[in-house]
Amino acid sequence: MSEDDVKHATAFEMAARQRDISVSEFFLKNRHLLGFDSPSKAVVTTVKEAVDNALDACEEAGILPEIRVRVSHDGDRYRVAVEDNGPGIVEKQIARIFGKLLYGSKFHKLSQSRGQHGMGISAAGMYAQLTTGKPMHILSRVAGENMASELFVSIDTTRNRPDIHRKKRVKWDRPHGTRVEVEMEGRHQTGAHSVEAYLKQVAIANPHVTLVYRDPHDELIRFERSIAKLPPRPTEIKPHPFGVELGRLIQMLSSTRSRTLRHFLEDEFSRVGRKTALEIIEHAGAGLSARSYPRRIAHAEATRLHRAIGRTRISAPRTDCIVPIGEEQLLDGLRKELDADFYTVTTRPPAVYRGNPFQVEIGIAYGRPGGVGLQRDSEGHIRKTRRGEKSDTGLPAARADEPARLLRYANRVPLLYQQSACAITKAAVQTNWRAYGLRQTKGALPVAPMAILVHVASVWVPFTSESKEAIASYPEVLKELRLGLQECGRRLAAYLRRGERLQREYARRVHIEKYLPHIGIALQEILGLSDEEREHTVTDLDEILHRKRKS
Amino acid sequence: MSEDDVKHATAFEMAARQRDISVSEFFLKNRHLLGFDSPSKAVVTTVKEAVDNALDACEEAGILPEIRVRVSHDGDRYRVAVEDNGPGIVEKQIARIFGKLLYGSKFHKLSQSRGQHGMGISAAGMYAQLTTGKPMHILSRVAGENMASELFVSIDTTRNRPDIHRKKRVKWDRPHGTRVEVEMEGRHQTGAHSVEAYLKQVAIANPHVTLVYRDPHDELIRFERSIAKLPPRPTEIKPHPFGVELGRLIQMLSSTRSRTLRHFLEDEFSRVGRKTALEIIEHAGAGLSARSYPRRIAHAEATRLHRAIGRTRISAPRTDCIVPIGEEQLLDGLRKELDADFYTVTTRPPAVYRGNPFQVEIGIAYGRPGGVGLQRDSEGHIRKTRRGEKSDTGLPAARADEPARLLRYANRVPLLYQQSACAITKAAVQTNWRAYGLRQTKGALPVAPMAILVHVASVWVPFTSESKEAIASYPEVLKELRLGLQECGRRLAAYLRRGERLQREYARRVHIEKYLPHIGIALQEILGLSDEEREHTVTDLDEILHRKRKS
Repeated sequence: MSEDDVKHATAFEMAARQRDISVSEFFLKNRHLLGFDSPSKAVVTTVKEAVDNALDACEEAGILPEIRVRVSHDGDRYRVAVEDNGPGIVEKQIARIFGKLLYGSKFHKLSQSRGQHGMGISAAGMYAQLTTGKPMHILSRVAGENMASELFVSIDTTRNRPDIHRKKRVKWDRPHGTRVEVEMEGRHQTGAHSVEAYLKQVAIANPHVTLVYRDPHDELIRFERSIAKLPPRPTEIKPHPFGVELGRLIQMLSSTRSRTLRHFLEDEFSRVGRKTALEIIEHAGAGLSARSYPRRIAHAEATRLHRAIGRTRISAPRTDCIVPIGEEQLLDGLRKELDADFYTVTTRPPAVYRGNPFQVEIGIAYGRPGGVGLQRDSEGHIRKTRRGEKSDTGLPAARADEPARLLRYANRVPLLYQQSACAITKAAVQTNWRAYGLRQTKGALPVAPMAILVHVASVWVPFTSESKEAIASYPEVLKELRLGLQECGRRLAAYLRRGERLQREYARRVHIEKYLPHIGIALQEILGLSDEEREHTVTDLDEILHRKRKS
Repeated sequence: MSEDDVKHATAFEMAARQRDISVSEFFLKNRHLLGFDSPSKAVVTTVKEAVDNALDACEEAGILPEIRVRVSHDGDRYRVAVEDNGPGIVEKQIARIFGKLLYGSKFHKLSQSRGQHGMGISAAGMYAQLTTGKPMHILSRVAGENMASELFVSIDTTRNRPDIHRKKRVKWDRPHGTRVEVEMEGRHQTGAHSVEAYLKQVAIANPHVTLVYRDPHDELIRFERSIAKLPPRPTEIKPHPFGVELGRLIQMLSSTRSRTLRHFLEDEFSRVGRKTALEIIEHAGAGLSARSYPRRIAHAEATRLHRAIGRTRISAPRTDCIVPIGEEQLLDGLRKELDADFYTVTTRPPAVYRGNPFQVEIGIAYGRPGGVGLQRDSEGHIRKTRRGEKSDTGLPAARADEPARLLRYANRVPLLYQQSACAITKAAVQTNWRAYGLRQTKGALPVAPMAILVHVASVWVPFTSESKEAIASYPEVLKELRLGLQECGRRLAAYLRRGERLQREYARRVHIEKYLPHIGIALQEILGLSDEEREHTVTDLDEILHRKRKS
């Protein structure tokens, strides 16, 4: 055997090393893909995943959510507990929901929800287990049942399946709800990436939610709901024909239960009724009829059917599968949490990417410090704006000499990390803010005392990674973002122009008020006026100047 | 039943909707995670994945790689074929390698390779199937066998397993190698994100590879190897104790075949011999001995063992598992493909993140247009630099008024997309290039006629997504990147200072040469010198001025 034979592998040796990779192993090794790349981020990501699930469950069950979050620690051992008043989880599902990646109820349906991958909370458990060796502790009580279920669950990563350590029925004073607790290596983070900042941003976009947070210093922070009404439930939709690729169509044809092509088109797609179905079939031409048996349609015919869909007029997708926050609620949220002089909000009409409906909402809060700070009162007089009373915990809008703050949301969930990788950032950076009177260097956010809030709601948000921290730059999404930002930008520009005018007038007014009495005295001396005549003249002059200013 | 009951789901209804999500379904819906978010990107990503596999296989088998890439199309139906002279694939593995996600030989070992996830090429097949409904076409012949295997394979996405459409043994004139062809919806891309630009960048970092590309216009483009020698084979290593988390240690203890704790430590970790193993065990304290049976070690003892590892002196990980490109080869590659005046290259010493060894290499090419363009010859005279002869297809370094070009590599693979999400970009942007004499606005790349090449080699590159387009910002990686960039920056600064001096001197020299004869004539007239005396005086003066300049 030569030295070369020793060092180099043959095709047979290589074949012997080929193996299956379990999805849990994959994500354990790539845990930064799930948001667990550092101890401080792990804590926030765990809170996020648990809160997402709690809110989704409450809303689906029609319950006004009240979520309790607790973070405590002993050195770098952190304990994160999230408890909700949701419908609870049926016992036999608990282990799989918490102890298996790629398992869930939201992946296969087309409707807006916070979770969509079936991975988040199990990933938190996996990280906990990796860093402390401790299983997750779950308590859940289904409404109407006497007892709660308590389970200790870990993940068998080589098989991607739950390992149940202990399971029993216990008393729990909540009538229904779920509590999950994990113990992990963590670090406390303050500022923009803290648990508190995260929850505050949740509150802005979810005014129907009450959040109670007990922080590591044992302080209690409450974010009270401002609306005692759930947002409308998004409906579930079927795929729209225009978003279906040829390969997917072929797969759908081969697995449908419909017995005729016409029924297949009507049953499996949204916006296809009898008339549209027949039209599509007609466009597809010879070899296909309304009564063709879907499973027997060959590749060439399927290709023609796919082309025929593209040539048929079909109504745009239904959009009640998406529920935006709404302009009024968004404005309320902004006013409540951001201290500013000017607020504006816009909700774009729904649009579609890759067949998935989505909708963009934009809000801007501008001013303080360095803001305009002036307004015209009801009588037309200019006065300094009184500073609103804001809580200490209010998020500051950005400072005057710093880039604008960007608050990103997807399906009402705040996005905290990977700002530079996000389509929202891309759109905000590409917007020409100089046209709206702001300073901006090319390729950067504008420098202004401003916060820009952007919400993308969709039946399927295209995230750039499983950690759902940034949105991928699909051209259709970028376009809607840009249009919304421009709309808000134009309104801001109008406000700023008004502000500049006000500022100029205010300065003039101050000058006039200062010098008018002296002019009066001068006139009195020159013209030999009485004190009364002098007063009268000054008032007249003031009136004239004031009218001139208004015209 | 009230209206509320109709709309809202109970825990039981929710439970009924919980389902497994197959990993192929997951990535089909999230195909942008794998780099298939647009038709133009899909073509480049397919070439990339196939070329990565081909190069890995050739190098593992000790074969100098020669890869043929062909892209052709009929409208938006693209056909991508990649053929290598590698060792071939054993027939029974072909279907799984090409028709199943998370299957491969590189995931479970710690050694540097281009592929690591076991997904790329199957993802290309999945995208092809989705957009055209066509299976992949694979041809492979194992060295020493008479016939090749030909297979048509697609992926059953609901089960994540291969579907073999046809399989037969055929004649193939190649002695060994693999050819894969897919048909997909695509779009032709020119410029920085084209197949050609991609292959050119592969050539820079892989001077031992010959690439032959037949483009959609049927033109043949060759990138010839400049070194007829394979890089050294990276060795496979075991995990280093410092990179192993408590949870992982517990799992390793429970699945080891070693019968004693001492053997476990020696067998399963790198850098742990008998002495170190005994030291660790001693540090772990009571309850654990060299002869403890690993599978019976309880949680509390494992925790102490884990802490003991942290307290023991253990040599740094072996680094022959990483093979950098090397300063000389990198410099060759830069010179060959980038037209510039100044080149510098640095290879950092190996470092470790999360227990994984990695190494950073940086190269800078500076100049043209707007570069210095002057040099001192061997006799100390300043002259204009002659423009080097570069091929037309040479990548331009950036233009003088544009941000520097960033060429990013991971394990010798060029990273084309998601530049803004990458740790390499972050480090380059955070480097203070003003200190090295370049223009730079905060938060941006320097503006200079410059290309910065960065290579990160590791046994496990932490990518920000499965498409492997950007590197995650682990602090240890960022630090090495910054140090390397600073090193190159300092050398560039020295060059630029020298350049400025040269430029000043050159201007003076031109002046002197222009005016010296006139001074000679003036002196001749004033002092009544002969022509010879005048010539002599001028030469003397020139000499004096020249000496002065040099001192």
